[in-house]
Amino acid sequence: MNRKFHDSLAGLVREKRPIVHCITNYVTAGDVANIILACGGSPIMADQPEEASEISALSDCLLLNIGTPKETTKDAMIKAGLEANRRNHAVIFDPVGIGASRYRTEMALSLLKEVRAAVIRGNASELRVLLKELTGKNGKSRNSSDSSARGVDASFSDEIREDTLEALKETARALSAATGAVAVMTGAIDIVASGKEAWLIRNGCPQMARITGSGCMLDGIIAAYAASAGPASSQHAVFQAAALATAAAGLCGERAAKKAETFQAGTGSFRCCFIDEVSLFNDSTLKGGINIEVS
Amino acid sequence: MNRKFHDSLAGLVREKRPIVHCITNYVTAGDVANIILACGGSPIMADQPEEASEISALSDCLLLNIGTPKETTKDAMIKAGLEANRRNHAVIFDPVGIGASRYRTEMALSLLKEVRAAVIRGNASELRVLLKELTGKNGKSRNSSDSSARGVDASFSDEIREDTLEALKETARALSAATGAVAVMTGAIDIVASGKEAWLIRNGCPQMARITGSGCMLDGIIAAYAASAGPASSQHAVFQAAALATAAAGLCGERAAKKAETFQAGTGSFRCCFIDEVSLFNDSTLKGGINIEVS
Amino acid sequence: MNRKFHDSLAGLVREKRPIVHCITNYVTAGDVANIILACGGSPIMADQPEEASEISALSDCLLLNIGTPKETTKDAMIKAGLEANRRNHAVIFDPVGIGASRYRTEMALSLLKEVRAAVIRGNASELRVLLKELTGKNGKSRNSSDSSARGVDASFSDEIREDTLEALKETARALSAATGAVAVMTGAIDIVASGKEAWLIRNGCPQMARITGSGCMLDGIIAAYAASAGPASSQHAVFQAAALATAAAGLCGERAAKKAETFQAGTGSFRCCFIDEVSLFNDSTLKGGINIEVS
Repeated sequence: MNRKFHDSLAGLVREKRPIVHCITNYVTAGDVANIILACGGSPIMADQPEEASEISALSDCLLLNIGTPKETTKDAMIKAGLEANRRNHAVIFDPVGIGASRYRTEMALSLLKEVRAAVIRGNASELRVLLKELTGKNGKSRNSSDSSARGVDASFSDEIREDTLEALKETARALSAATGAVAVMTGAIDIVASGKEAWLIRNGCPQMARITGSGCMLDGIIAAYAASAGPASSQHAVFQAAALATAAAGLCGERAAKKAETFQAGTGSFRCCFIDEVSLFNDSTLKGGINIEVS
Repeated sequence: MNRKFHDSLAGLVREKRPIVHCITNYVTAGDVANIILACGGSPIMADQPEEASEISALSDCLLLNIGTPKETTKDAMIKAGLEANRRNHAVIFDPVGIGASRYRTEMALSLLKEVRAAVIRGNASELRVLLKELTGKNGKSRNSSDSSARGVDASFSDEIREDTLEALKETARALSAATGAVAVMTGAIDIVASGKEAWLIRNGCPQMARITGSGCMLDGIIAAYAASAGPASSQHAVFQAAALATAAAGLCGERAAKKAETFQAGTGSFRCCFIDEVSLFNDSTLKGGINIEVS
Repeated sequence: MNRKFHDSLAGLVREKRPIVHCITNYVTAGDVANIILACGGSPIMADQPEEASEISALSDCLLLNIGTPKETTKDAMIKAGLEANRRNHAVIFDPVGIGASRYRTEMALSLLKEVRAAVIRGNASELRVLLKELTGKNGKSRNSSDSSARGVDASFSDEIREDTLEALKETARALSAATGAVAVMTGAIDIVASGKEAWLIRNGCPQMARITGSGCMLDGIIAAYAASAGPASSQHAVFQAAALATAAAGLCGERAAKKAETFQAGTGSFRCCFIDEVSLFNDSTLKGGINIEVS
């Protein structure tokens, strides 16, 4: 990993204050806005087709999340996405619940047909469905049982564990190769993959799966980091930014869990503590705790 | 009350992890998702007609809440509701603000015409308006002043107090008889009624009326509990699940209030503490504190 | 300032429990509902044109916020606004992100053409854009660089600092003169202006700019205070209510920051603490700490 980059990106985000244009779901929109502010960016939520290009143009990157799609979502996402592509802004795409309905699957596919994503983030089930839809392949080395997602969560056979790791790394790499985007597959272990390499991130804690919006919030951090790292066309910079953002979020989760434990807190307080940690961390916090396995 | 059921339902929910399909308002959607996760379920928010049936089919129960209705809400709710009925999944219906506008009233009525609800939850004003609209009756034994709701809150004459209890029990019973659903009427005292019986729940605390979404969050807990208790067609199981969920939420409110008091907290922290307690409670917590009066 | 008014408004809000009809964005809708409850009001979120007039009629004031506009927003806002005007209810208007897109600018202008706002609240960039659009003027005494907003945040040249204060007071006064509304311009220092006078409020803390919804929440407090102070036609009462609400929110921010500091909290906990303080404050809290400079 680029040492200099690694050592200063968290600070750079706070200095640059990138504007993140979000077209996201209404369930976690407030959390996403708060986490973008916490890590140093400036969020603007705007999901109407009438203003999508203009808002994208004044922003530094674009976050697209199909968590609660509606009639106008596809149109707004494509308009904003084309503008972001034109300006070489990173587009972060989160295919929430793809596979749960044909409607979501088709929205994701039409979007990726028109817009070049710099990062695609999802759980293993989501990314596997997306790969299959795009290529007809179901990921290599998968066992035969074609498990589907459990709603918006990964199915058991898609949990990222030591015994599923190799197959899922292959899926992430294949998705990156098929789309040109960095693939971020999150779970108990996180995988950040380009067509060539796949890094493992062993940060995070089980509590993150017990609050809504962990993934959506990570999308926001990745967006702010990618916007600060360089233009979308530099896959190398985007890759490192995505890996660092994912590790940073995981580390903040660990620290939040430790803090929440000291006062016997549950998931409500954990969520506050997580946002706290993201707002407090800096490059030296990161240096102490991130666990990225370059492979 | 079925002792065995009572003793193990909280644990059963965490074991089964039922998927709760939510078509709900955007104000408290995040809180509802978080509380469903906290009590052991898995939420999926999806309110577009195009995907409503499919999402309902892959879920274990359905939560319909008209807190912020929009053009597509009725259509999505009916599609999801019919699918849930076909599969014998419990449908939890919350007629938020019914009576505040003709639009909401008509949405509630068309919905109940097409979809069979297993549970209807609301405050006393909401349930009284609903009963009147369905039957032309205004509840028995009401005094003559036909008070209406104050926005989304119950009017004074509809507060559930010792002196209004008998009349409101009758309203809840009548609503259950008219719809076939278990009626859950919440306030300072909660009433859970079938056509034949009405139980009183004396858990809860005043702080719950000072945060938004207490009712919506209870809907989510009832949904997860009902899905774990059995098929929607077993009114006995649904009734007990609704009663237990209501008591559990009230007890978590009490515990949260006590905790929040120790650090002179206000309503912002109370809300976190409430979600904390829901994420922490289990069958033995429940055994110690629920106060259900079977009548 | 009217001493008696000043001494009792916080208590009056809790006594009257005004219903605040909110047509607001989905990002901070939950926070706005919670803060209205915390300060003593009763929120009702309802943004469909079909029910806008009816809900406005049963409410005590109206809050319009264009943070996430959609197809039906303008229609709903105008219907609700006309009803509120007819009933002499205060209309609080927040032109979030005006200038960021032509769509928002036009929505704000058509709204103000039809509806009489009692209070317009925004940051300096937003209010300056609005004034320019309404009058063709760009505020007096501005330096030549016509800086625009950074997304939904004020640009650097529009930060309210000692060296920009006089020019921005003039902008606020001019906006009030042009619209008949009290102008509330918020930033590091807040300005509350009528056509004749401009008060400065030196409460608040930097953390408020690091969470989403500080402005939207202030809108909610202003709405509840204005509804309790008197009819919308009494600009004197509305002015004092807006000033007091702004100072109260700022003071609660200070107190929250102090509390959050004691446990090394970040922005997630600060947000909870802020809502806590709003739910706890009363007239004597206010007396001790508000810093209003009458000019």
